[in-house]
Amino acid sequence: MIYPEVLRNAIDSFRKLPGIGEKSAERYALSMLDLSEEDIDNFVSSIKECKSKIRKCKICGHLTDKEICSICDDSNRNPNVICVVEDYKSVFMFEKSGSFNGMYHVLDGLISPIDGIYPDDINIASLESRIKENQEDAEIILALKPSIEGETTTLYIKKIFEKKNIKVSRLSYGIPMGVEIDYLDSITLDRALLDRKEIS
Amino acid sequence: MIYPEVLRNAIDSFRKLPGIGEKSAERYALSMLDLSEEDIDNFVSSIKECKSKIRKCKICGHLTDKEICSICDDSNRNPNVICVVEDYKSVFMFEKSGSFNGMYHVLDGLISPIDGIYPDDINIASLESRIKENQEDAEIILALKPSIEGETTTLYIKKIFEKKNIKVSRLSYGIPMGVEIDYLDSITLDRALLDRKEIS
Repeated sequence: MIYPEVLRNAIDSFRKLPGIGEKSAERYALSMLDLSEEDIDNFVSSIKECKSKIRKCKICGHLTDKEICSICDDSNRNPNVICVVEDYKSVFMFEKSGSFNGMYHVLDGLISPIDGIYPDDINIASLESRIKENQEDAEIILALKPSIEGETTTLYIKKIFEKKNIKVSRLSYGIPMGVEIDYLDSITLDRALLDRKEIS
Repeated sequence: MIYPEVLRNAIDSFRKLPGIGEKSAERYALSMLDLSEEDIDNFVSSIKECKSKIRKCKICGHLTDKEICSICDDSNRNPNVICVVEDYKSVFMFEKSGSFNGMYHVLDGLISPIDGIYPDDINIASLESRIKENQEDAEIILALKPSIEGETTTLYIKKIFEKKNIKVSRLSYGIPMGVEIDYLDSITLDRALLDRKEIS
């Protein structure tokens, strides 16, 4: 037992963080000794509140500390354009880029029959209730990852809203910004070729 | 404001950890949401206890959650050989290597007149009281870093115990294990040459 027990417990706690090994956990636990009482209290209460106060927005399923998230509550945003994402992390990514002014809908998963996840297991029903049939200015933008599960979910949602006569789009596939074409994988290159756009 | 306030607070808390930037802090704060209530409670209490229960050993100055640390309290260790280190981190390093069976003395700093740190500001007096004059089997091993401050402190302590007729040694300088000689800095190489050892 190299470390005193309470220090050992703190190290074990920090090891629960994603991607943290023994060495970093030791460093973080020891750094607690250098923090002031006030910093420790803030640290502890912020972690506790994170767990107790953060819940899902009743409308879109995004994380919030209120009933309805600040995005759904923002009257300056366009409620008729809904970007459908897999999880709340995607919402934070979109919000950081700052270029989208519509609403979000967090599915909290993707359809994956092989893992026993069917359409009823993710938040698709609540998405349907957000858009009226034949609503002309409405649009569903599907922003799901390019995997079998992502494609399956995309096609499933597309079918639902096609019937309701709602415009459905998905993010474009293609070459990411700033890469060398030589190092691209061939599937991405194939998709970029297939989805090529006329230069106007 | 991309993140809900309580999440933002947690991110700011994690940013206080050494070497943690915004991206990692976000990841750690979000990971709190996936921990169970029990894990959160353990996390929080281990951090609090770290701050409230860890103190300095009355004998050697190492970290402990008791009056006297487990090393000073271990009757299987040799109390006459004292390894003098700058801080508690060095003690953990020595203990991990597991090859030292004596005691430690944590100085909690190094003499550095330029920074206003004089011999009285670090734990040298308490080291003197641990070794009797002319004690034949006693040895002080100085394990301080090879810097101006480390050398100054080493020489200062050597002088004190020389007068008391106590054996004083320091760690050997030289080539670290496993490195390519080509990539060594010239000061290390000079020291390794100067301190060369006859092959017996």
